[in-house]
Amino acid sequence: MLEARALCFDVFGTVVDWRGGVAREAEAVLGAKGHRLDWPGFADRWRALYQPAMEAVRAGRRPFVALDALHRENLAALLAELGIAELSEAEVDRLNLAWHALDPWPDVLDGMARLARGYILASLSNGNIRLIVDMAKRAGIPWDAILGAETARAYKPAAEAYDAAARMLGLEPAQCLMVAAHPSDLDAAAARGFATAYVHRPREYGPDRPPRRPAADRFDMQAEDFLDLAQKLGA
Amino acid sequence: MLEARALCFDVFGTVVDWRGGVAREAEAVLGAKGHRLDWPGFADRWRALYQPAMEAVRAGRRPFVALDALHRENLAALLAELGIAELSEAEVDRLNLAWHALDPWPDVLDGMARLARGYILASLSNGNIRLIVDMAKRAGIPWDAILGAETARAYKPAAEAYDAAARMLGLEPAQCLMVAAHPSDLDAAAARGFATAYVHRPREYGPDRPPRRPAADRFDMQAEDFLDLAQKLGA
Repeated sequence: MLEARALCFDVFGTVVDWRGGVAREAEAVLGAKGHRLDWPGFADRWRALYQPAMEAVRAGRRPFVALDALHRENLAALLAELGIAELSEAEVDRLNLAWHALDPWPDVLDGMARLARGYILASLSNGNIRLIVDMAKRAGIPWDAILGAETARAYKPAAEAYDAAARMLGLEPAQCLMVAAHPSDLDAAAARGFATAYVHRPREYGPDRPPRRPAADRFDMQAEDFLDLAQKLGA
Repeated sequence: MLEARALCFDVFGTVVDWRGGVAREAEAVLGAKGHRLDWPGFADRWRALYQPAMEAVRAGRRPFVALDALHRENLAALLAELGIAELSEAEVDRLNLAWHALDPWPDVLDGMARLARGYILASLSNGNIRLIVDMAKRAGIPWDAILGAETARAYKPAAEAYDAAARMLGLEPAQCLMVAAHPSDLDAAAARGFATAYVHRPREYGPDRPPRRPAADRFDMQAEDFLDLAQKLGA
């Protein structure tokens, strides 16, 4: 842990509240059309199409395509399932930008400001560069580098997503600390030699579905939030 | 010009003073060993090996390799030419990091702070990601995205360097304004559909070799520095 030089962050769920942000944007666009839906449920259903869409790329069934395009396809499928047919292409495009406008969890900006003094802060997300840029400019997230799927042309948990990040940071994998709320992401990073920090995000899936905490020894560190992570890293 | 959404910056010479910074670092490392050289001249000679090294990649004679590796090879060659043989590998490595520790021109930070309010600020440099990250963290340069050679796996002025930047920004080339002190870079960007802004950097090559200004109509804009650029862009 002492040798970590860069922190590589999962973004959706770890840095930002995707469920609340997508629900808000969906209500803004679809509510204005008179629809009355369970908005967090809409976010859950859209998000549920995320892994299958990436799996087509990971398995080589289709060439790499940026997450914005996968989100757009998934949104069109979800709207069709819901029988919502009256949106123009421009309105669907606008709703697809919901993922660019997500809010950080309350501890994120203060925690990252502390962490930035001692570490390179890199996103290692499946989000494409423009998505992460728009999110960061809106919310003030201080990335030093935007890495992840689009620079690696590979979706986590593919090995190349982690390998490319370490290579582009000019670091050994062990000098990179993967920070994520998702054990599967951390397991995949550890398999590529990264150090790992689990951050508990009890509300990612809504107030009624807190995630189970992993066993205390499964990862190199566990933190309650980014302030706790900064504290534990001495930053 | 009104439609520009992102500013794509050349870095060496346009954002930072490579000659002064490399001269300072060379003096720090080699001067401590008792060498007395013309330090700006040392920087010029190292820099002179830059284009030929990249050309080997551009021409397909060798696979893509990050600029740090090219700088390291060029430094070894230059030290051999100068008959400097007593540096350890670690000392040569340290000197190679000179390019990570360059100072911005005096107008850069204030100008970019203004520009950041209205535009995505992306580096579009031949420098590798870690080099640009280290430089930015040291100097406080507020990049929104680090693009260029390593994300494109192509060195400017290759078309793919510009094409990949626009693609990763999710923008049409005409929505990207290339900002550079070098007419050849701007010509190559314009050939790929970018808008162009020439910034005059009279001291890039030292006090006695001011660059010639391009014709007034050759590029979309000309600016004296980044404050003037911000003014002309209404930022």
